[in-house]
Amino acid sequence: MRTEPVRVAVVGVGYWGPNLVRNLIEYEGAEVAYVCDRDPAALARVARRYPSLRTTTAFDLVLGDDGVDAIAIATPVSTHHRLAGDALRAGKHVLVEKPLAPSAAEALDLIELARQRGLVLMPGHTFLYSPPVNLVCDYIAAGELGEIFFVSTSRVNLGLHQPDVSVVWDLGPHDFSILRYWLGEPPTTVNAISRGCVLPSVPDIAFVNLEFPSGTIAHVELSWLAPSKLRRTTVVGSRKMVVYDDTSTEPVRLFDSGVALRDPQSFGEYRLTYRTGAIVSPRVEPVEPLLVEVDDFVRSVATGSTPRSDADLGLDVVLTIEAAERSLSAGGTPVEVERSPRSLLGTRSR
Amino acid sequence: MRTEPVRVAVVGVGYWGPNLVRNLIEYEGAEVAYVCDRDPAALARVARRYPSLRTTTAFDLVLGDDGVDAIAIATPVSTHHRLAGDALRAGKHVLVEKPLAPSAAEALDLIELARQRGLVLMPGHTFLYSPPVNLVCDYIAAGELGEIFFVSTSRVNLGLHQPDVSVVWDLGPHDFSILRYWLGEPPTTVNAISRGCVLPSVPDIAFVNLEFPSGTIAHVELSWLAPSKLRRTTVVGSRKMVVYDDTSTEPVRLFDSGVALRDPQSFGEYRLTYRTGAIVSPRVEPVEPLLVEVDDFVRSVATGSTPRSDADLGLDVVLTIEAAERSLSAGGTPVEVERSPRSLLGTRSR
Amino acid sequence: MRTEPVRVAVVGVGYWGPNLVRNLIEYEGAEVAYVCDRDPAALARVARRYPSLRTTTAFDLVLGDDGVDAIAIATPVSTHHRLAGDALRAGKHVLVEKPLAPSAAEALDLIELARQRGLVLMPGHTFLYSPPVNLVCDYIAAGELGEIFFVSTSRVNLGLHQPDVSVVWDLGPHDFSILRYWLGEPPTTVNAISRGCVLPSVPDIAFVNLEFPSGTIAHVELSWLAPSKLRRTTVVGSRKMVVYDDTSTEPVRLFDSGVALRDPQSFGEYRLTYRTGAIVSPRVEPVEPLLVEVDDFVRSVATGSTPRSDADLGLDVVLTIEAAERSLSAGGTPVEVERSPRSLLGTRSR
Amino acid sequence: MRTEPVRVAVVGVGYWGPNLVRNLIEYEGAEVAYVCDRDPAALARVARRYPSLRTTTAFDLVLGDDGVDAIAIATPVSTHHRLAGDALRAGKHVLVEKPLAPSAAEALDLIELARQRGLVLMPGHTFLYSPPVNLVCDYIAAGELGEIFFVSTSRVNLGLHQPDVSVVWDLGPHDFSILRYWLGEPPTTVNAISRGCVLPSVPDIAFVNLEFPSGTIAHVELSWLAPSKLRRTTVVGSRKMVVYDDTSTEPVRLFDSGVALRDPQSFGEYRLTYRTGAIVSPRVEPVEPLLVEVDDFVRSVATGSTPRSDADLGLDVVLTIEAAERSLSAGGTPVEVERSPRSLLGTRSR
Repeated sequence: MRTEPVRVAVVGVGYWGPNLVRNLIEYEGAEVAYVCDRDPAALARVARRYPSLRTTTAFDLVLGDDGVDAIAIATPVSTHHRLAGDALRAGKHVLVEKPLAPSAAEALDLIELARQRGLVLMPGHTFLYSPPVNLVCDYIAAGELGEIFFVSTSRVNLGLHQPDVSVVWDLGPHDFSILRYWLGEPPTTVNAISRGCVLPSVPDIAFVNLEFPSGTIAHVELSWLAPSKLRRTTVVGSRKMVVYDDTSTEPVRLFDSGVALRDPQSFGEYRLTYRTGAIVSPRVEPVEPLLVEVDDFVRSVATGSTPRSDADLGLDVVLTIEAAERSLSAGGTPVEVERSPRSLLGTRSR
Repeated sequence: MRTEPVRVAVVGVGYWGPNLVRNLIEYEGAEVAYVCDRDPAALARVARRYPSLRTTTAFDLVLGDDGVDAIAIATPVSTHHRLAGDALRAGKHVLVEKPLAPSAAEALDLIELARQRGLVLMPGHTFLYSPPVNLVCDYIAAGELGEIFFVSTSRVNLGLHQPDVSVVWDLGPHDFSILRYWLGEPPTTVNAISRGCVLPSVPDIAFVNLEFPSGTIAHVELSWLAPSKLRRTTVVGSRKMVVYDDTSTEPVRLFDSGVALRDPQSFGEYRLTYRTGAIVSPRVEPVEPLLVEVDDFVRSVATGSTPRSDADLGLDVVLTIEAAERSLSAGGTPVEVERSPRSLLGTRSR
Repeated sequence: MRTEPVRVAVVGVGYWGPNLVRNLIEYEGAEVAYVCDRDPAALARVARRYPSLRTTTAFDLVLGDDGVDAIAIATPVSTHHRLAGDALRAGKHVLVEKPLAPSAAEALDLIELARQRGLVLMPGHTFLYSPPVNLVCDYIAAGELGEIFFVSTSRVNLGLHQPDVSVVWDLGPHDFSILRYWLGEPPTTVNAISRGCVLPSVPDIAFVNLEFPSGTIAHVELSWLAPSKLRRTTVVGSRKMVVYDDTSTEPVRLFDSGVALRDPQSFGEYRLTYRTGAIVSPRVEPVEPLLVEVDDFVRSVATGSTPRSDADLGLDVVLTIEAAERSLSAGGTPVEVERSPRSLLGTRSR
Repeated sequence: MRTEPVRVAVVGVGYWGPNLVRNLIEYEGAEVAYVCDRDPAALARVARRYPSLRTTTAFDLVLGDDGVDAIAIATPVSTHHRLAGDALRAGKHVLVEKPLAPSAAEALDLIELARQRGLVLMPGHTFLYSPPVNLVCDYIAAGELGEIFFVSTSRVNLGLHQPDVSVVWDLGPHDFSILRYWLGEPPTTVNAISRGCVLPSVPDIAFVNLEFPSGTIAHVELSWLAPSKLRRTTVVGSRKMVVYDDTSTEPVRLFDSGVALRDPQSFGEYRLTYRTGAIVSPRVEPVEPLLVEVDDFVRSVATGSTPRSDADLGLDVVLTIEAAERSLSAGGTPVEVERSPRSLLGTRSR
């Protein structure tokens, strides 16, 4: 493993990029080689806070600099394929904001590029590094919840409407990546309805239903129109249940509740017993997820390990969004999620 | 209007019937003529509390008694058509527990019977008499919320599984009747997925999406499996938003929040402004809905007025459930809700 | 132990008495021998619900009936001494609503009467039979919370003003009995301020501070004037902390939080570490406390055992109220709680 | 009014000082002339973030610089008198962190110094610039709540213990300044009990009762030991009630609830009616209070106006703390709050 810091250029310092800059600066194993943006005003804002950083509007300059090991891209999704592709072709490792690309074809293209060159390509699914999300993942993996019957989730708040993409492209990657991570499999079928309430051409509310190979079903409510912010996910298993609420001071609550079937054969009728036990709010470490994500990226670059948020998972997220959008267009008709060609190779990650 | 009390026989005193008995006793304008049940033990339980009541296991005796004006039926849904039909044919007005009948055909049959004989046929959609539900209805009718963009509702708790019907038949009538009442129209299309988690043959979780003629969309989550009881409905309008939570000490909360479009034509791009204003929890009268329902039924019998929870609304609820069940069977495919033949007559109630 | 049911006469069926009647009827080991009240209308209300009960306005008749083993008194506190005294002198066991008597002198008099005649005298401190209160008591007794540093409690709501007694006499018995039960000792010192907001002569808000022999301090806020109902008690121990909230679906919450002192001697300065661990909401049995209270009373009558809510505890509650009232009169000056003469005998109960 | 920016030196950049630096930089009408601290490491931390700032360990240098108009002091309270006194004697306006001084005598001394030299002396009671606090103040001033019956407040959390001062000196200034601001008068009498739970010599829990000239009473609970953070203040008036909760997304809630006395003279008895009306959560502007405080200070320096958080209010806060500490030492005996000599001059501010 290399011991020198990984030198990262951050491209795009609009809304999210400055968070990347701050965490890369705080992280011991990395150095910010450049901050790059087409907008000089955005660069100036960053420079005021961190005067020692090298800024540039010239992406080519960054690509051509041998002192740059990796590029972190936080630009609009429509530019991901071009910028990430150029970076990979220039031999740079890439961290790219979610979603990985605006289409599965483009995502696959990037994955192929990275594979050929032996470079890291990591979509920034930050929630995979969130302590409460990982706590729930651990419960599921350890069998604490039993079989996962269903998941129901609401990610709603007032604003911000995106001018060019639907609420499914904007908020969907969060829940679809979490589900993919928890369940270890992409959905098989999606059906969804939506409405463009404020701008008829831009869906700002969507109700998305998902079915998974293992039998789990899920509902995902996504909205830019809501009276108050909700980030509430319920996971109901055959043994226990969990509520994960990212707005709460107790983000994970484990319910020792369930239903048991007694003597199903006797007397020709079912007898059920309900169990309502203790509720536990485990301690959750107060760690900034983006710092853990940066650590995972830098380690992958330095050691060649596969990041938790790997490109295959990012591709599955894009395939899920595409299926949802097809269902929306077809008035809610269930649509099969395309199988990732990658999944045939048995490289599915958990 | 008649001034004598309306004499009502209550048929079925299992879970819900005793509530009917109690409210009919408390209500000045009614008298309980009989309490009837096939199970002598159920009758004995009622008699212990109200020793002066006349009890019988003989439904025919009740039907044949001219002293009985009306029959309130609180038996399993599979018996509704037969019992209500016999009662109407015997010239009795009928209050029958929701849903009105186990199929739209049977519901229509009962409606026709009642129409021919000029009798009241009222399904007991109790939520239509709940003060918070009516407060929200008033807001909608007064235009306080503006255009209704969408409704999202969760009705979930742990238990009780019904042995013979799905969660859609058990819990769906509540939300479908409320939506029908608030919006003044039945849905056009339904798609739904579900899972029989505990008993594979009995769906205990269902995610139901609905589309209405006016453009409103709705999501209804119904479940007998949940870590905690939720009764939460969000109504998002173009002017204001409402959260109705039946488990809260503040069951209705009105949010003066929304999005406005500014100068949509200028510069070829949309500019939105978000408004987050005051939240008001109006005072809600502490009235027992069932008492108001009994009042409405008795008045309809006495004066010939149409009850708020009328049979046409009850039929629309059954048609909605049937469409949801068809969509479940078809793997979530959107299904059109059959138009009620009644709706052609322009008798749609609000 | 006797096997026949204990025959209890209930005296006073205004607000609380009907609850006693209902629970005595439900309880297998008891029989309601009489219902007695000066007000025929109150008797009529009970008779309508339970037509088989014997009712009377003549207390003497009840006292003279050898078929009556015990008398449960639910009349205004000003009558407790006379009615309970007469009952004891007539050889009847007595359950009397809290507070035991309107003065410590009268309470002592009743205790002496009961002792001489070998009869049960039990004040109805119902909270001592409440499952959450007992759960907290178990934690304390087991050392789970460590040393009890302090308790802070709010018992406030809007109404109901009592015409003749202060909020301290009305609501204080609840918290003072719970503290006495949990800590196993009465307070040594009380200081309190209050205000008669609505009626200047009747304090409707009081802030009461208490100090206990073991070092525990407590604050009790009592009010008939409050924007919303609060029943919140925090117990902070050296090892763990508890919040007991009687209005919550999770009435007991156990916090694994605390402060530890490290190397207090080193470097002449203190170093503290804060621990914030898991929070557990244990399952609480859904039992009606009054039924458990009735069971305890009947067992005490039948077997001669000492009830959990015994007269010594009831006397300590009255002594605490008296001290609080003296402090109120003295403008908040700390006042010593008189030691119960009973405490000299070493009969303190836990 | 001067149009040049006010040049402010910030002295002390430990915990709070950096916030002052940040807000002074953001504020248009001010310039940070120096950042001064005895600890070079603290200066280095600030310099890393704001490399252009002039830093120094030499307070004398700052005092002697004519380019410095004002000094903002954020050092431990034990140093306030010396540093603020030196600054005033050097002709500088002074903003000093709360509490103004560690004793009323020292506070008075500073006030006299500032008066003689015509300089601004402003204690940094930041809560007086908090939007929810001001909203409640507006309700009170407008008579919306009617007569203020009582105030009950809890300011508790786990940590941080101060090594040298009690929880009353640490957290008390917040509530005492808010009460002084809302009620427009200091308390007349204080009684308080406390306990040093973790370190016997340092009270970490205190229950403080206050009585005000107008009849309002208040309870203030202050604690560094608590299962969860509470910042809850209830204000009960004769017309309406308010709950101010600084940890909530709805920090102010106005309850249209109360009690009315009907026909008090009739029939020799009181009849009360309880009113429970709507609850309103008004919109609260998302403004950083410290920025408004900086604005008030700079305006006072520039125009000679009296700041909202003026030195007389700061003196009353110190007098209240002193009274509370005397009561603690006297075992909870009520102690009169010394009247500020300033109050004789009729300069009481609201």
